[in-house]
Amino acid sequence: MNEQRIPIVQNILSANDAIAESNRLLLKQAHLFSVNIMASPGAGKTTLIEQTVKNLSNDLRILVIDGDIATTLDADRASAAGATAIQINTGGDCHLDAVMLNKALVQTDLRQFDLLIVENVGNLICPASFELGTALNVLVASVPEGHDKPHKYPSMYRGVDYVILNKIDLLPYVDFDVEFFRKGLEALNPAVEFLLASCRTGEGLSNWYEWLRKQVDRFRSLSVV
Amino acid sequence: MNEQRIPIVQNILSANDAIAESNRLLLKQAHLFSVNIMASPGAGKTTLIEQTVKNLSNDLRILVIDGDIATTLDADRASAAGATAIQINTGGDCHLDAVMLNKALVQTDLRQFDLLIVENVGNLICPASFELGTALNVLVASVPEGHDKPHKYPSMYRGVDYVILNKIDLLPYVDFDVEFFRKGLEALNPAVEFLLASCRTGEGLSNWYEWLRKQVDRFRSLSVV
Repeated sequence: MNEQRIPIVQNILSANDAIAESNRLLLKQAHLFSVNIMASPGAGKTTLIEQTVKNLSNDLRILVIDGDIATTLDADRASAAGATAIQINTGGDCHLDAVMLNKALVQTDLRQFDLLIVENVGNLICPASFELGTALNVLVASVPEGHDKPHKYPSMYRGVDYVILNKIDLLPYVDFDVEFFRKGLEALNPAVEFLLASCRTGEGLSNWYEWLRKQVDRFRSLSVV
Repeated sequence: MNEQRIPIVQNILSANDAIAESNRLLLKQAHLFSVNIMASPGAGKTTLIEQTVKNLSNDLRILVIDGDIATTLDADRASAAGATAIQINTGGDCHLDAVMLNKALVQTDLRQFDLLIVENVGNLICPASFELGTALNVLVASVPEGHDKPHKYPSMYRGVDYVILNKIDLLPYVDFDVEFFRKGLEALNPAVEFLLASCRTGEGLSNWYEWLRKQVDRFRSLSVV
């Protein structure tokens, strides 16, 4: 059965990659810097986005596009925090794909925004196989998940530009070796940005905000035609 | 793209269901009670299995079949705890399927065991779509994931027979409303068994062990031809 599925998956991925390239162009033309935020369920994506919107929306106009298999809970939270939010329900699919994102992008006046945050479906496996066309990929890991996760989910950890290790306020209560995690991460992905943070208390997040501001500025200067 | 994928997925699922039925028959003929344990990454499946093997292997002969996208870390831990362990590497696939389990079952003398524990790939979405043919399905949820998960992952929460809410030792340190979680769960799945536990401290697990012993006895008496 596996052997029969391989060509089908490859066809879907090449179609996806073509649309991802089109998304990349749309975002470039609109000078809109974008991140695709991935994580396992409950690692803290939505809380990170809430905090980010609260802290940056005075300076940056933020659009949040939320992917979920059901409900609008995440988009509601982003919207309540002060962002413009669009919900994509994947209808059971375990990841966003470039076509889903494209449908949301073409319906939106992208020039009204400085920062696009895409919140992917909670899953450490499938989203890694589907490029969306965003500028950078971000992974939210969390302390209670355990320090072995880079070893167990190498495709995800290898393919991202920035890893936030969230819930460091729980370090005193669980068995988590930060150095073991860091070594696992850096063996797969030596160039990755790595940040320790607590989205609940806000600890560490000022570095994330500063990084986002810099990326927005850099993307604006690069995108000017 | 989604529309084109639907018939393919249906074909794969009906092939899967036929093999799952064959697995069910193999297990019945061997009088071997089996559970399929699912969870998001880091919820505590492997620690639950370690504790279960340590506590029950004096009375029950336990076989653990571990599914993972890479590494043999989980099978190593089950084996170190005292079980016979078989590792299935899915080669990137986000779930076990009935064919993978079948390959492991037909290579094993199933009559040598009283309890089969299958550890699925860490994922709250995909494993819910693939019946394996085990007698019952178990979900390990965990406190740090948040109390909204039944609402956000309804297919998984609807399709299981037993939910263990793990890591209750972290309740003092996170915002988690047990009653909100319980109501979300029972709205989707009124007949489910529900247990609060900490696989780290062992709290609550005696109920799980007792339940497993009863199921093994019941399955043996049902299976006698």
